Amino acid sequence: MRVVVNAATSVDGKLSSREREQVDISNRADFERVDRLRADSDAVMVGVGTVLADDPSLTLDDEDLIDERTERGEPGHPARVVADSRIRTPPDAAVLDDRAESYLLVSEAAPTDFVAQMEESGATVIRAGESRVDLAAAFEELADHGVDQLMVEGGGEIIYSLFEADLVDRLSVFVGPMVIGGREAPTLADGDGFTDEFPALTLENVERIGEGVVLTYTTE
Amino acid sequence: MRVVVNAATSVDGKLSSREREQVDISNRADFERVDRLRADSDAVMVGVGTVLADDPSLTLDDEDLIDERTERGEPGHPARVVADSRIRTPPDAAVLDDRAESYLLVSEAAPTDFVAQMEESGATVIRAGESRVDLAAAFEELADHGVDQLMVEGGGEIIYSLFEADLVDRLSVFVGPMVIGGREAPTLADGDGFTDEFPALTLENVERIGEGVVLTYTTE
Repeated sequence: MRVVVNAATSVDGKLSSREREQVDISNRADFERVDRLRADSDAVMVGVGTVLADDPSLTLDDEDLIDERTERGEPGHPARVVADSRIRTPPDAAVLDDRAESYLLVSEAAPTDFVAQMEESGATVIRAGESRVDLAAAFEELADHGVDQLMVEGGGEIIYSLFEADLVDRLSVFVGPMVIGGREAPTLADGDGFTDEFPALTLENVERIGEGVVLTYTTE
Repeated sequence: MRVVVNAATSVDGKLSSREREQVDISNRADFERVDRLRADSDAVMVGVGTVLADDPSLTLDDEDLIDERTERGEPGHPARVVADSRIRTPPDAAVLDDRAESYLLVSEAAPTDFVAQMEESGATVIRAGESRVDLAAAFEELADHGVDQLMVEGGGEIIYSLFEADLVDRLSVFVGPMVIGGREAPTLADGDGFTDEFPALTLENVERIGEGVVLTYTTE
C-alpha cells in the first residue's frame, strides 16, 4: 500500500494555532490539488485529534471528481480512516456518515461496547496493536480491504507516528504565506520527535501556487 | 533599520530537535548564502537561548567576504547582537569575543552588576523596556549606532517576538529535506503564538538549493 501524506502549514510549520482551530492556510488552487489527491486515493486518513478539532467529512467537493470515480467503477468518495488509539471518536462524527465507507483503527484494548457502537455508526473497525494502534498491521488489513493508496491528512501526531514507523511513501506540504507561531501550536510532525536518524526526504517537486508553495518529497 | 530574519528548518518547521542540539539542516550552498547575508548586514542578532544552546560566534567564514567588507571601510565582521531579557548570557560566550563588536539588549530590570560584567566582557549594553527587552526601542538605539541592516538568525522565541512587534521586513527560510518532529522541539516561531490576525507574508522568491528550498518573503 502506498501512503501519501498531505498537509498545509504556515511558514513556521504549524497546522493551526495553539487553540487548534482551523486556520485558512491554503488557497483555492490548493484546495483543488488536495481534492484531486483525495479522488486519486482509495482512502483518506486522519488521526482522532483532527476529528475532534475539525470534524471533517473528508469527502470530495468537486462533482466532476466524484463522477470520474463512479465512471471507473469506484465509490463516489474514497473511504475515510480514523486512527484512534484512545477511543475518542464521537459516534456522530462526520467521518462516520453514510456518504462513504469508514474504517476505525483501534488497539486490542478498545472496549467491546465502544467497538459495537462504532460498528452501529457504520464503521468497519480494525483492531491492531496491544494498547496503541499498530499502524503497519492496520495498514495491511486496509490493503486487504482494497486500499492501494492511502492519503493521510494529519494531524501532527499521526504524521509523526507514520514517519516513526517508516510508513510514508510521499509527503506534500503546502506552505502558506503566514506566521502562526506558538510553542504549543500543532506542527506537521509532533509526537516525541526524533533526536537522531532524522527521516531523510528526497525533494521531488517545488511548485508555486499563488502566494503558497507546494513541496513534494519522496522517502525512497 | 531593515530587519532580515533568516533560519533553516526541517520540513516540519523545526530549528532543532527537542534536545535543542544543533542539527545539520542546511547544505554547503546554503551556508554560502547565509555567510553572504551576514556580510551584507551591519549586525547579526540571536536570542540568548541560541547563545546558550549553540554558543555561535556569528562571524564570517569566508575570507573574501571579510576582505570585501574591509575594502568598503567596514569592520571585517558585522556586529553581534544578543537579546537577553533574563540576563542569561555567559561572560565567556563566543558572541562576546573580540573578533567583532557586540551589543547586548537588556531591560531596565537588568542588575547593574550584570551590566558591568557584560561591559567588562566587551559588550555595549542597550537598556530598553521595563522587565522585558523593548525590541522596537532597542532597535532605534542600534540604528543610532549605525546599524542599517540587522540580520536575525533565531531562535524561535526572538523571531516570534519580532513578528509580534511588527519589526520584520524580510524572512528567508531554508527548508531542509528532513523531518525532525516533536511537540517540544523549537520551531521557526514559538512564543505564545498568534490566534488571529496572523502576520501575512508576500512570497518574493522560491529557490531550490540542492535538496533544500529557500523561501523568501517580505512583510510589506
